[in-house]
Amino acid sequence: MKEWMNILSLTKPVIQAPMAGGLVTPRLAAAVSREGALGSLASGYLSPQVLEKQIAEMQALTSRSFQVNVFVPESRETPDEKALEKWKTSIPLAEQAPPMTTEEQDWEDFYEKIKLIIKYKVKACSFTFGMPPAATVRELKDNGCFLIGTATSIEEAVALEERGMDMIALQGSEAGGHRGTFLPAKGESSLGLIAFIPQAADAVNVPVIAAGGIFDRRGVQAAEILGAQGVQVGTAFLMCAESEASRIYKRELLAAQGTDTRLTSLFSGKPARGIVNEWMKQKQSEEADTLPYPLQNTLTKPMRQNAAAQQDSGHISLWAGQSAGGLHAATDVKTLLDQLC
Amino acid sequence: MKEWMNILSLTKPVIQAPMAGGLVTPRLAAAVSREGALGSLASGYLSPQVLEKQIAEMQALTSRSFQVNVFVPESRETPDEKALEKWKTSIPLAEQAPPMTTEEQDWEDFYEKIKLIIKYKVKACSFTFGMPPAATVRELKDNGCFLIGTATSIEEAVALEERGMDMIALQGSEAGGHRGTFLPAKGESSLGLIAFIPQAADAVNVPVIAAGGIFDRRGVQAAEILGAQGVQVGTAFLMCAESEASRIYKRELLAAQGTDTRLTSLFSGKPARGIVNEWMKQKQSEEADTLPYPLQNTLTKPMRQNAAAQQDSGHISLWAGQSAGGLHAATDVKTLLDQLC
Repeated sequence: MKEWMNILSLTKPVIQAPMAGGLVTPRLAAAVSREGALGSLASGYLSPQVLEKQIAEMQALTSRSFQVNVFVPESRETPDEKALEKWKTSIPLAEQAPPMTTEEQDWEDFYEKIKLIIKYKVKACSFTFGMPPAATVRELKDNGCFLIGTATSIEEAVALEERGMDMIALQGSEAGGHRGTFLPAKGESSLGLIAFIPQAADAVNVPVIAAGGIFDRRGVQAAEILGAQGVQVGTAFLMCAESEASRIYKRELLAAQGTDTRLTSLFSGKPARGIVNEWMKQKQSEEADTLPYPLQNTLTKPMRQNAAAQQDSGHISLWAGQSAGGLHAATDVKTLLDQLC
Repeated sequence: MKEWMNILSLTKPVIQAPMAGGLVTPRLAAAVSREGALGSLASGYLSPQVLEKQIAEMQALTSRSFQVNVFVPESRETPDEKALEKWKTSIPLAEQAPPMTTEEQDWEDFYEKIKLIIKYKVKACSFTFGMPPAATVRELKDNGCFLIGTATSIEEAVALEERGMDMIALQGSEAGGHRGTFLPAKGESSLGLIAFIPQAADAVNVPVIAAGGIFDRRGVQAAEILGAQGVQVGTAFLMCAESEASRIYKRELLAAQGTDTRLTSLFSGKPARGIVNEWMKQKQSEEADTLPYPLQNTLTKPMRQNAAAQQDSGHISLWAGQSAGGLHAATDVKTLLDQLC
């Protein structure tokens, strides 16, 4: 039994990826935790009020460990004025976009969420898009919370260890959804796990977890041989009955090959891996012009919401990892976890 | 013992990647074959005359199996006239570029090379950048040659099996050098091996080999658990005393992290993974304008040759896989193979 599994009373070295944007609710996360893996609430786009409700709901559903994932707020970049005007007119329904949050509001929410994690004695907390402040790390640790950072490079893994993380999730290039990159790289921060895991395991002393492209037992065992103490799985959980992924989303996942995905900033302003759809094809040549995160994300929100309501898979973000081609049927949490290990 | 290893009388399930461009000579390939792995001659940029000399030299050095890799000729794309004028003036020494070969000449050379492979009873032949004609496949097989194709997607793996390949090398996104992609993909043909191997192993009946990002025992074992019957290793062999990589190239490899590499078309007109250097940084914004392969390659040749002579690592192609960060010392073929398995 690995120490981190002991600390969190897990029987399976599997973390359900905290996929933000309404895909994960306590129903899915609790089903995962009940099977002895680590369920995750994704607080990234939630208000502290909604997160509090989800934590309470989660604790009513299971007494097992779970984690809350928190986005580390980022500095706002000033958009190019010409690009802003162009996107305002070329993104459908952009005029209905809500006001964008400020960095100050993001930090207020961040600290509110940390308070809730402490108040409700949540066993583990993970971070994406950066490093939490040192004082936050100390406060959470003083309250017995297990901390997980997200790295997309060796440099980020080393920095997260120095900041006090208890474990580091290595986000391989295979992973679906947003890249968690927060430090600049000379080349590209998208290492395939077969190269990333052993290099990271050699570079840090805390345990590392492999995230990206894993959909069955072979991936889990390979990750462990490479030096990981467990895996984080996202896309495969979207195919579970307990997930909130829509019918059209599940249909696209089922039909997809791993090569049907690519990184795009067209939905949010930040690179994320998803199945190529109409919006990505139509605007591919304007990829380099996208507005900085979260501005592009805010402007595309009405388009995405409207498409979801219309069951139009061409204008919602179909985040998916390169595991997509390995998913051949609808499933449920217990069956999937039994297939993983 | 795996059947393909039996056929080729190997004791190690390792192929030395056929890295074209003068990096591999019979000295390196023979050292690999003598240790029971599969040495490879890289005929891509060689004339049939030079290849014949290398095969003879190889057979004088070892009686063990080796392979010859052949590029499948590609149709020439017409360059954009404006882009052509721009690059002719902005690539240093472009005016000294040799005439570009025609597709017809490439095919003549291709068939000459196939004749040599048959004449010298070379045990194995691998192909990059496409599928050999069906008649060539039959001729080689009638002469007892073992055929290996290179795939960057499930679709390519399936097509190569249908064309009659005995084995398929899966080129993961981690791999250094040129992408072997020859069929269009909806997204990107750059699957990480942890996702690619199991999906490909399920899709074809012939054995698959994993190429990209592997530098020690952990990668070899992981690849096998994922469903590969062996591995192909490139970058790590460049650090061997027996390789022809220059002193400056080896120095850059030793200093590199895996995230110091990225895909670029700036050297050849075709995407290839290398360590980011001066030329790649300087022309990054013009990446989308590069001339089609092999025109860009021909025009940058004098610049690359001159830089090599001047020991200027900023203007040569520093092809490297994401394994680069795992290479910590100069080595030799025997030591490296002992570390791999």
